[in-house]
Amino acid sequence: MSEAKSTKPAGSDLEERRTVRGRQRGDRYVRIVRPAQREFERKDAGHLVATEQVLAPTTAPGRFVDGVRRVLLGARIPTSLELGERIGKVKGLAVFASDNISSSAYATEEIMRVLLLAGLGTMAALTLPITLAIIAVLAIVVVSYQQTIGAYPNGGGSYIVANDNLGPFPGLTAAAALLTDYVLTVAVSIAAGVAALTSIFPQLFDMRVALGIAFVVVLAVGNLRGIRESATIFALPTYVYLVAIFGLLGYGLFRFATGTLPQYTAPSEWSLQETVGPLGILLVLRAFASGSVALTGVEAVSNGVPAFKRPESRNAQVVLILMGSFFGVIFLGMSFLAGQLGIIPDPTEQETVVSQLTRTFVGNGTPYHYLVQISTALLLVLAANTAFADFPRLGSILARDRFAPHYFQFRGDRLAFTTGILVLALLSAVLIVAFSGSVTALIPLYTVGVFVAFTLSQAGMVRHWWKLRATQRGWRWRAALNGLGAVATAIVALVVGAAKFALGAWMVLVLIPALITLMWAINRHYRTVEDALTLDEPHGTLPRRASPRVLVLLARLDRASLEALAYARSIAPLVTAVHVTDDPTEGERIRARWRSLDIDGDTDLVILESPYRALIPPLVAYIDALQKQEPERSITVVLSEFVPRRPWEYLLHNQAALRLKLRLFFRRNTVVIDVPYHV
Amino acid sequence: MSEAKSTKPAGSDLEERRTVRGRQRGDRYVRIVRPAQREFERKDAGHLVATEQVLAPTTAPGRFVDGVRRVLLGARIPTSLELGERIGKVKGLAVFASDNISSSAYATEEIMRVLLLAGLGTMAALTLPITLAIIAVLAIVVVSYQQTIGAYPNGGGSYIVANDNLGPFPGLTAAAALLTDYVLTVAVSIAAGVAALTSIFPQLFDMRVALGIAFVVVLAVGNLRGIRESATIFALPTYVYLVAIFGLLGYGLFRFATGTLPQYTAPSEWSLQETVGPLGILLVLRAFASGSVALTGVEAVSNGVPAFKRPESRNAQVVLILMGSFFGVIFLGMSFLAGQLGIIPDPTEQETVVSQLTRTFVGNGTPYHYLVQISTALLLVLAANTAFADFPRLGSILARDRFAPHYFQFRGDRLAFTTGILVLALLSAVLIVAFSGSVTALIPLYTVGVFVAFTLSQAGMVRHWWKLRATQRGWRWRAALNGLGAVATAIVALVVGAAKFALGAWMVLVLIPALITLMWAINRHYRTVEDALTLDEPHGTLPRRASPRVLVLLARLDRASLEALAYARSIAPLVTAVHVTDDPTEGERIRARWRSLDIDGDTDLVILESPYRALIPPLVAYIDALQKQEPERSITVVLSEFVPRRPWEYLLHNQAALRLKLRLFFRRNTVVIDVPYHV
Repeated sequence: MSEAKSTKPAGSDLEERRTVRGRQRGDRYVRIVRPAQREFERKDAGHLVATEQVLAPTTAPGRFVDGVRRVLLGARIPTSLELGERIGKVKGLAVFASDNISSSAYATEEIMRVLLLAGLGTMAALTLPITLAIIAVLAIVVVSYQQTIGAYPNGGGSYIVANDNLGPFPGLTAAAALLTDYVLTVAVSIAAGVAALTSIFPQLFDMRVALGIAFVVVLAVGNLRGIRESATIFALPTYVYLVAIFGLLGYGLFRFATGTLPQYTAPSEWSLQETVGPLGILLVLRAFASGSVALTGVEAVSNGVPAFKRPESRNAQVVLILMGSFFGVIFLGMSFLAGQLGIIPDPTEQETVVSQLTRTFVGNGTPYHYLVQISTALLLVLAANTAFADFPRLGSILARDRFAPHYFQFRGDRLAFTTGILVLALLSAVLIVAFSGSVTALIPLYTVGVFVAFTLSQAGMVRHWWKLRATQRGWRWRAALNGLGAVATAIVALVVGAAKFALGAWMVLVLIPALITLMWAINRHYRTVEDALTLDEPHGTLPRRASPRVLVLLARLDRASLEALAYARSIAPLVTAVHVTDDPTEGERIRARWRSLDIDGDTDLVILESPYRALIPPLVAYIDALQKQEPERSITVVLSEFVPRRPWEYLLHNQAALRLKLRLFFRRNTVVIDVPYHV
Repeated sequence: MSEAKSTKPAGSDLEERRTVRGRQRGDRYVRIVRPAQREFERKDAGHLVATEQVLAPTTAPGRFVDGVRRVLLGARIPTSLELGERIGKVKGLAVFASDNISSSAYATEEIMRVLLLAGLGTMAALTLPITLAIIAVLAIVVVSYQQTIGAYPNGGGSYIVANDNLGPFPGLTAAAALLTDYVLTVAVSIAAGVAALTSIFPQLFDMRVALGIAFVVVLAVGNLRGIRESATIFALPTYVYLVAIFGLLGYGLFRFATGTLPQYTAPSEWSLQETVGPLGILLVLRAFASGSVALTGVEAVSNGVPAFKRPESRNAQVVLILMGSFFGVIFLGMSFLAGQLGIIPDPTEQETVVSQLTRTFVGNGTPYHYLVQISTALLLVLAANTAFADFPRLGSILARDRFAPHYFQFRGDRLAFTTGILVLALLSAVLIVAFSGSVTALIPLYTVGVFVAFTLSQAGMVRHWWKLRATQRGWRWRAALNGLGAVATAIVALVVGAAKFALGAWMVLVLIPALITLMWAINRHYRTVEDALTLDEPHGTLPRRASPRVLVLLARLDRASLEALAYARSIAPLVTAVHVTDDPTEGERIRARWRSLDIDGDTDLVILESPYRALIPPLVAYIDALQKQEPERSITVVLSEFVPRRPWEYLLHNQAALRLKLRLFFRRNTVVIDVPYHV
């Protein structure tokens, strides 16, 4: 105390004062570096930089866990290496386009499934026109997004564009739509990937839910390793898929051109009752809605611009164009050939349309059949990775804007957003289980969110060009282009929402407002807290407070309580020990032992008799009474807490301490200190 | 500090010193009573007695919860009123004999179900002889237990008797057997009670699991109210059942004697295939084993002796004799009449044998049929109460002997052992769900435990008389009587274990050793801890320790951190603020703001740069380095913890603090202090 008082009031030359004091006392941070040179480098006085050594585990189980972690996730990456974690066009196409291109594995099939309800003839006649309509929308969206990428080189996800140009509410709507969409991307892509596998390995069909979960786990681990390495994983299957499928389509078109199309017959065990329903406009719209899953994944590229190597925008734009072109060609070719062959979707969802198409051309179980199916499966499962890149990134942006819990911003050892990855993995696994891994059951939930986000993003771009009208040349045609995109996607959003409402779209339409409300509430909370916590400027001198009134709760007189008592006496001059009991004679026994302990100085014992056996209420009442006497002095309650050697032993101790802490946590001006006692 | 030092060394005349100091300072416990006269009565200096006022809730939701609690559980009872909570013979029969007497509702039926496997003729022929054999065992056990009650007026449960006379291992075996048995008593009795109800209200059959759970909840609440009131609830149904069932049996025997037995026909919808299996000795033994559920509940009386009014032993002995006689008569009459009428057990378990018997005599749906069924149901559900009295009592005895977690000893506001009641309710509810509320499925698990406990208890009594052979007259015949009981029950235990092994008894035979191991481990843990904690005598003077080295973890510079800083400075002269960051420029920003804060005295700021973004390892490494410099000085880490207004908001804060506390809890010589900040 006397030392503190003798210190001169804080002046400007802090550095000098510190060194002097450091020399005087010899027990301060200035000298701390010497015994810890491996753990810290000294930058200047009071600024130490931790080395990787501080993360080294010191126990045998710790070393084992650390070893497993390194094998699974790789070595740690310091923040300063972040810029190096970028990808070029070739890897970029693999990472960001896999989501979109992989939709070609099920888009045609989902259109056909809906049209089949109106009969085989209708299906054969209408699949191709609906495919063309969807490709037209895709073209509009790709062109429209070229501008978004140019205007938002730091990542132009729908949330950012809508938030920037239309305000926080449309921004949050886009964010909520995208979050649900990313979860569904993982669930649908993985379910479709598993379906591609069960097409060639029917014996796996009964395990499809377990397989789906396994793929989710693999993806989560891969993404916790960080983005560059996941790109390496993805590059190969994407290109193998492209080569294999273009080869198949080319061969198919050659057979068609030469008039030598092979004969297709549906397996006889499919009990295809020709129950021809009426072909209404609603059915056509539902087919269109099902097929528009083809547009999912376009967002991914514009969202991920900063992950590209320089020039980021240019690379991203090229990838987007390539993606749209590749996908359009595959989708069109697939729908055309399926129609020409007269393929029928499997009612049991065991074999996909792509598999039927492939084996009709190259034969069942041939190496090429295996090549197409396995690369499709890999592409689909890995396409889910797009969501694993985007969901955590959007989560971190929302957390930065305080619409999500702040730990969505924390990055792990490998620069990946750990929380977002884990939350996405959990939610998508739940969806796969809930819908038994069926693509057709999941599709109606999908795409509503995507098109809501598209619409808000394109509408935001229109506003963007309007704001830049003074400086930007050609703002009119730019705004018109984005306006066309907004109108087209708004129409699709309405069609999907209406046509699929009863089939599951309603869940998403309920979930999005719920998510918006939640994010809004989180934001309001953080703002309230910040208002309450921010310091007024300029600040005064921080005064020294009087030492707190310290109560030590003695359950009995043993080494643990004496440890707590000794600690209490080391932090405050006046300490009172309190013993609560329902047995007056036991209280007297404690008092007698207390006397024999010969505790010096200002430490007294108070026995609180509690005839109703309650521990906490009498103690709180006693604290209240103390506080009433001296309202300005804070109260500190010291508890001795037993530290067991094995975790299960914790159940045998400390329950009362836990309840007391919970009770006093909400009491103002009260601090509870656990003094751990190690046996 | 100076005040503490000026105090004279502790002398003998503590009382006087305290008063003097109290007067000097005026802020100590001696004056505390005045502002808190409603909450405390002062007994003497440093001994306050809490009034019921301290338990009064102060908030509106608190008052609501308290009101609900009072309606459900009744007013609080202070410990000093305990002796008044005793019961006489009439209520005692209702409370402690209901378990045993209620077995008459299913014992006959369970014998018949086994014998039916060997055909209708076998069943008719063998039910009565097996009933007589069981009654013979019951008579031996009742006589044998008369002596236990006399020798153990403070409660002679099997655990106590075996532990006292045979040692801790047999004691624990008996305890484990009894604990499983009590859980099964609740499950079986409630399942049978629900079956009695579905016999007259078949529409309830689909809800039998839900009904069972509801009864468990009612019983748990009733028992949390305390024993006297539960006795009042129980007296009526027990006596109504006895009157109703004796009336029925008397009428039935009259009809038999006059040769006017009514005609019984099994409902035609029971598809009774006469699949006559061979009648082996195993089947007879299984029938005997099923019927010996009749002996469950005998233990209850000798276990509950101290709950009786004085003279406790005499009252308990009378109740035991009455119980055995009543039960024997009912069981015999029931088996006899069921055989004479040719009743067949319902294969769907929807209607009980008792119900079939009753309606054959008095007609289906007549008021007397309702009377018998409803009183049977009530008696059975309430019989489960015996276990609700015994399980918590045994749990508290085990906790006293440190074989169970110590909170099994705590008693609630109404003197009931809260933990035991809740654990029993939970476990029995799980059993009812797991076995879909079927009595026949639960029976094989039952009774093994009972007879293991019987055997150990009676064998213990033999040893007891041997030890008293010098002083006790007639110890030989007493020992012989208990020896007969031990042999008889050991044989039954073997029969039940072997005959029912594959049907479920194996679960109990696995569970009992597991429980013994667990209780043994708990005991060893508590003994180790006590050895480590007990103070050596005589004690020295408790020294004053040096004040701890205090680190304040600053996440940012806001009101909450300044609060933590102010607290830290109030408990120790030297305080170091630590800021961990992965961004060196952010560290410099914090340092600049720190300087502008103008914090006086010996409080410095250290920036710990963590390039791998980890928070805890660099901090722990820094603490290690500090500790190495001054090993004898303890380290205290002060955190500011945000107190949210709504519980869900807690998820948005404090995660890092929680992880840090967990990490430092296991570090020696380190105390973590949360300074709560209330907005």
